[in-house]
Amino acid sequence: MHSWLNNIREMKIAVDVMGSDKGIEQVIEGALLGAKQEDVDLILVGDKKKIDFTLKGNLPPGVTVEGSNKTILMEEKVSLGLLRDKETSISVALKLLEEKKVDAVVSAGNTAAFVGLAVKQLGILPGIDRPAIAILVPVADGFSILLDVGATVDATAHNLLQYAAMGNVCSQVFLRKKNPTIGLLNIGEEKTKGNSLTREAYHLLSSSFANFKGNIEGQEIFSGEIDVIVTDGFVGNVVLKACEGIIDLIRKMVKNSFSSYPLGRLKAILNRNLLQTLKKKVNYAEYGGGTLLGVNGICIISHGRSPALAITSAIKLGKEAAISGIVPRLTKTIKELEGK
Amino acid sequence: MHSWLNNIREMKIAVDVMGSDKGIEQVIEGALLGAKQEDVDLILVGDKKKIDFTLKGNLPPGVTVEGSNKTILMEEKVSLGLLRDKETSISVALKLLEEKKVDAVVSAGNTAAFVGLAVKQLGILPGIDRPAIAILVPVADGFSILLDVGATVDATAHNLLQYAAMGNVCSQVFLRKKNPTIGLLNIGEEKTKGNSLTREAYHLLSSSFANFKGNIEGQEIFSGEIDVIVTDGFVGNVVLKACEGIIDLIRKMVKNSFSSYPLGRLKAILNRNLLQTLKKKVNYAEYGGGTLLGVNGICIISHGRSPALAITSAIKLGKEAAISGIVPRLTKTIKELEGK
Repeated sequence: MHSWLNNIREMKIAVDVMGSDKGIEQVIEGALLGAKQEDVDLILVGDKKKIDFTLKGNLPPGVTVEGSNKTILMEEKVSLGLLRDKETSISVALKLLEEKKVDAVVSAGNTAAFVGLAVKQLGILPGIDRPAIAILVPVADGFSILLDVGATVDATAHNLLQYAAMGNVCSQVFLRKKNPTIGLLNIGEEKTKGNSLTREAYHLLSSSFANFKGNIEGQEIFSGEIDVIVTDGFVGNVVLKACEGIIDLIRKMVKNSFSSYPLGRLKAILNRNLLQTLKKKVNYAEYGGGTLLGVNGICIISHGRSPALAITSAIKLGKEAAISGIVPRLTKTIKELEGK
Repeated sequence: MHSWLNNIREMKIAVDVMGSDKGIEQVIEGALLGAKQEDVDLILVGDKKKIDFTLKGNLPPGVTVEGSNKTILMEEKVSLGLLRDKETSISVALKLLEEKKVDAVVSAGNTAAFVGLAVKQLGILPGIDRPAIAILVPVADGFSILLDVGATVDATAHNLLQYAAMGNVCSQVFLRKKNPTIGLLNIGEEKTKGNSLTREAYHLLSSSFANFKGNIEGQEIFSGEIDVIVTDGFVGNVVLKACEGIIDLIRKMVKNSFSSYPLGRLKAILNRNLLQTLKKKVNYAEYGGGTLLGVNGICIISHGRSPALAITSAIKLGKEAAISGIVPRLTKTIKELEGK
């Protein structure tokens, strides 16, 4: 058995440097910083020429390059042909994980393609019906886990039950919660509230988890009272993006509000901290992105619009997931759940 | 035909003063201010003794009181018995509307009860399948319309089509948009994206509205580019409340951030404007609440947690809806849509 130190020394993460909206430079910058901070080795996967150009020949120790010929664009439709293509950077990175040459893959590219290729190349864990993407959401004194934010649409109540089990493991692994509380995202607290999906899911969750705290409403996502918030991929994705939208709006309003006062300029300077607080604490870039749960390997989906910092954080998440042995833990958890 | 001035003079709004989380005093305070600002007559509906106690005998001109014996609590389950009870303040207020003694009803009470009683007492407009609640959401230079935020769960694609038609009228009435753009809230832009509901709704919307701009993602709700955002009541409700949750979180973070710096106190004072901006521009209280669409009468649902200001704004909304003749306009619109 490996010791903690051995694990850290041997950790290697593949980063797909193509396909991000922000360009290859930011991804590489974030990846190198993450590797240094987290003391992990790195394989940069992508267009060799572009990577060499970006690095200007300075390949730091522990960092290697794996060439790939094709890039999946952010808005590209996920077709069967695309899933069969083995030359894309995402596919090449996942191949490294499949062959156990790396411990995790990070990509800031097309989420649907990443999910589709991960399912195809790594396979689904035994007993899992559908994968889910879990993210960390900010609360006053830390983070909670929200899943699914978009891996699966048209989820069933049984899918939500499995998400709860997987989110439970995530909370233990990433947030060191020993006995996380679980909540079902709904439009009212009573068990009779909600649509047909949530009413059925409530029943399954309450009979399967002692730590299930019932329905929670939208505003409670950020209250910190529930550690694992379960919802279907459609709702999770819309909520996540709506919250980003309102944060953008607030930033715009805050900036504009200064100009209407005589002391505007002074305030703008003094308010730099405040804008930084907003950016830092409520920006998804700070905590890297989503973890794809339910596939046989560690896949971290870095936020598409987010900069270098998101990649750095994604590497941290990938390392933590690998050290904790999240994949065998998820397998064990689902086996226990389904064996009931 | 009435002139604009006649309409204003004759306008009368019933306000259910019971059932708000914030207590009767705030509701009455907001209602009186709203009546004064908007130059409308008012009927305060609720416990006569409590209303008299709050008003201390000073009933302003144009304001009358209609007694009711029962209050529906905020978290009370909507049962058949509750819907049959004619003594609750919501039921008494709706009765006034039913009998054309008022032009609109405002309530800050139990939303589900308000919707259920409005459907029962006023009836559904001809051709409408299910009602919807539309709200104004803040964007950089004004507002957009989001519906449904919780009147109907388990909506069909055809429901969403009718919401689009009703939202269109709302945008014309409340925001003076002559040719509003319509978007479908989804998890991707292409028409093949989304769950089974949104894929079907996309098809219906694109073949019915020339001003349908396709799918929009969560962050675009607040961009101001789409005037009418259509979604089902489950997603709309969760999104609305999640955005409130993140605004609360940001406020907490902003307040806490001051204490960690030596200049914290000074900054706190200078940042008062900023907190006010946050509160003012992104707080749902400022624009009053939701309009229940699809019933035969004007019902404004004031936000449950919101203070006096929300009631004042709700009265403004109710007056605008009444002046514009929103109910016959909705009836005409649905007739045209369904006659296609």
